[in-house]
Amino acid sequence: MEAKANSVVVVHNTTIVTMDADSRVFQNGGIVIEDDKIIAIGHSSSVLHHFSALAHQIIDLNAQILLPGLINTHVHTSQHLARGIADDVDLLTWLHGRIWPYESNMTEEDSYISTLLCGIELIHSGVTCFAEAGGQYVSGMAKAVELLGLRACLTQSTMDSGEGLPELWAARTTADCIQSQRELYEKHHDTADGRIRVWFGIRQIMNSTDRLLLETRDAARELKTGIHMHVAEIPYENQIVIETRNVDHGTVTYLEKIGLLKNNLLAAHTVWVNNTEIAFLSKAGVKVSHCPAAAMRMLGFAPIREMHDAGVCVSLGTDGAPSNNRMTIVDEMYLASLINKGREVYATGTTDPTALPAETVLKMATVNGAKSVLWDDEIGSLEVGKKADMVVVNPSHWSMVPVHDCISSLVYCMRTENVVSVMCNGKWIMKDKKILNVNEEEVISVAKLASMELLKRAGIQIPNRMNIL
Amino acid sequence: MEAKANSVVVVHNTTIVTMDADSRVFQNGGIVIEDDKIIAIGHSSSVLHHFSALAHQIIDLNAQILLPGLINTHVHTSQHLARGIADDVDLLTWLHGRIWPYESNMTEEDSYISTLLCGIELIHSGVTCFAEAGGQYVSGMAKAVELLGLRACLTQSTMDSGEGLPELWAARTTADCIQSQRELYEKHHDTADGRIRVWFGIRQIMNSTDRLLLETRDAARELKTGIHMHVAEIPYENQIVIETRNVDHGTVTYLEKIGLLKNNLLAAHTVWVNNTEIAFLSKAGVKVSHCPAAAMRMLGFAPIREMHDAGVCVSLGTDGAPSNNRMTIVDEMYLASLINKGREVYATGTTDPTALPAETVLKMATVNGAKSVLWDDEIGSLEVGKKADMVVVNPSHWSMVPVHDCISSLVYCMRTENVVSVMCNGKWIMKDKKILNVNEEEVISVAKLASMELLKRAGIQIPNRMNIL
Repeated sequence: MEAKANSVVVVHNTTIVTMDADSRVFQNGGIVIEDDKIIAIGHSSSVLHHFSALAHQIIDLNAQILLPGLINTHVHTSQHLARGIADDVDLLTWLHGRIWPYESNMTEEDSYISTLLCGIELIHSGVTCFAEAGGQYVSGMAKAVELLGLRACLTQSTMDSGEGLPELWAARTTADCIQSQRELYEKHHDTADGRIRVWFGIRQIMNSTDRLLLETRDAARELKTGIHMHVAEIPYENQIVIETRNVDHGTVTYLEKIGLLKNNLLAAHTVWVNNTEIAFLSKAGVKVSHCPAAAMRMLGFAPIREMHDAGVCVSLGTDGAPSNNRMTIVDEMYLASLINKGREVYATGTTDPTALPAETVLKMATVNGAKSVLWDDEIGSLEVGKKADMVVVNPSHWSMVPVHDCISSLVYCMRTENVVSVMCNGKWIMKDKKILNVNEEEVISVAKLASMELLKRAGIQIPNRMNIL
Repeated sequence: MEAKANSVVVVHNTTIVTMDADSRVFQNGGIVIEDDKIIAIGHSSSVLHHFSALAHQIIDLNAQILLPGLINTHVHTSQHLARGIADDVDLLTWLHGRIWPYESNMTEEDSYISTLLCGIELIHSGVTCFAEAGGQYVSGMAKAVELLGLRACLTQSTMDSGEGLPELWAARTTADCIQSQRELYEKHHDTADGRIRVWFGIRQIMNSTDRLLLETRDAARELKTGIHMHVAEIPYENQIVIETRNVDHGTVTYLEKIGLLKNNLLAAHTVWVNNTEIAFLSKAGVKVSHCPAAAMRMLGFAPIREMHDAGVCVSLGTDGAPSNNRMTIVDEMYLASLINKGREVYATGTTDPTALPAETVLKMATVNGAKSVLWDDEIGSLEVGKKADMVVVNPSHWSMVPVHDCISSLVYCMRTENVVSVMCNGKWIMKDKKILNVNEEEVISVAKLASMELLKRAGIQIPNRMNIL
């Protein structure tokens, strides 16, 4: 990894949606990048005037739109090769019949390939940073993330108890779980030019002893890193917590009781929470990753408006390929608005097309994403001093034309087709739709083979839906 | 319009998802097209053996997937230039402040340009046939549809009463409404090599006198054509019908009472219906166009599972650009499944990830679409004797890889990126992502200008959401 010293790039003639605290949008804007950082931002004319002489490169974006890199706060990179293996099945079949056999039969190489393929999809959807939801082989993920040029908070899938676990996983002790994560932290945290961080993971409360929960809390605090956990996904989970852990509501109430609700907790889904629990989340500064597609498909309606009103920081995630199939944050923005407008019928009996407006959704995918991954000092908005993580969007494409309301067009019309180029940490990782650091076609070929072999090894068979001849 | 006599095209080495009554899928299939019709379908080897000698062209699809052309049964082509003019606003602002001023200020040329732009989006999403929801200037639409090479049922926006109507529309009598539609039928029905049909339209019951409803019913029966109507969109509509039309539930109950529920009625949305009304729809053979995105955004949860269980023919629509923004049936397939799985929480209290499985959704977008537009004798599936309306899908793209379950991948993973080529009525209208009959860039440029001028003429101003500098 070498960076040219003092490389200065000027990008101009672009609509810059900064997502800064003043919600500034420069209609004919310019931005200056030195190495990995933004050193100036403003009107094109002013930026060109002050920086043209210094620039090693001047890029005219022809009135395209510049956005902060989008942040996907809940991604199962290990599950990417499992896309389509568990569609339209009940939750028990999903977990015990498909996903656990699949994940427990992965090799480190599978994890690497799966993350490469997933990363390609992330980049095409304008993502520069993601939070791994907890998967197999952080080392495999790290290798892929380093190569792709992305930024990520990587997390190991961690469970030390629970029914029906594959043999390999059932043998893991609490001590193993904590120790292996400490080792991964030592080895991979703050690597790849600072683009990779390592977090602690808790798969979910039904697969965790109290000791695991408490030691995770303490280890993360000691190492000043985050915890990524699936929280309150289904009513059954809350029911089990009530029955076995002596609280009156569910997972969030229990996590509050044991002191795990802190501002370094990223709680994924968080669908089945009541108002008291929302207040707990807000007070503790817990971040919530809302995954609209996966929630609609499997879990239910998360009370996002209520969380937003209570001041909870809500960001967006895609979840994993077998829970969603599409892995694009661009679609989740569209869905977040649609689903939460629709949810008002469920919550209040009447529709509210004004609920969760576009500017709120765009915030969820940028600044709130950065806060969720504890990285908002460096990413999430385009501001002087922050890292140069950014996305070039072409609005003059059939999917967005005509643009009468730029912000709502970015949320409701933008498709992956509009995402043209992506820069992470000051380096282009996609330019004019071409992924730069890996050969996309090669990854696709390798992934097809690896996924077939993995399914065979895991003994997973997908029934035919039609009359195949 | 000239067609080469007896042109025979063989397409082979493709996975053909026929959507026929036996749900046949040919894994290595071939299909033979003579002029505008399918004359053979089967395994590649057999098709090549019997037809190679006769063929004027032999096309190897390299294991790509072949689908029947998708059918979008609720599209406001006239509203395409209005994309983004009414996002995140309440229904009254949407209608009176934005859409009516916009539509009532359109020229025939605007309608033509709007339909061209909309048609480009339809083709890119694999649509070969659509049902216009009722818009301005059928003549403008017809000109665009003929040029693009699409198939369509065109409908005039028709209202003869109601509060707050623009002056131009308020002046229209019932007789004008019926007469102008009869004239459009005379002029445009069965034109463009039979690709264009003209239907009757009823915008919605709150803008219709009883005389309009009854004369529409009779005129459509006389001319053996369909009626396209927005039905039971919001609780307020049902309430008004109960109060003013002396029935105990809402629009569907009233339409039953006056004999408008027939098998030539395409009822759009149909969200607020009870079980009695679902039984009315089923018994009469009424078709329902489910528009998942628009419903989530503005209307509520249509009881699609219940309609499906009751035997109602449900198809899919995108609605218009200002109700959805994305106008791609490919996304509506994904949404239909997600939203109706999620709706189970609203309907029954628990999620059901098995609700509305992929094969049902694919049927909604193909065979049910064909039934909805009263054209299933000729389109909706790939079968000998039917028209050659078909779509080539590339599954080896980052968005679909790996494919473990072909049918679910088509519904849950397929994006517009995967739609490579589209044939309608035996002619390619998009090949290798290139729209063949119009210049896409030129249409985009013209549409940008026309939409800005139209908004100015209509006096519509969109407030800024951010701090524009």
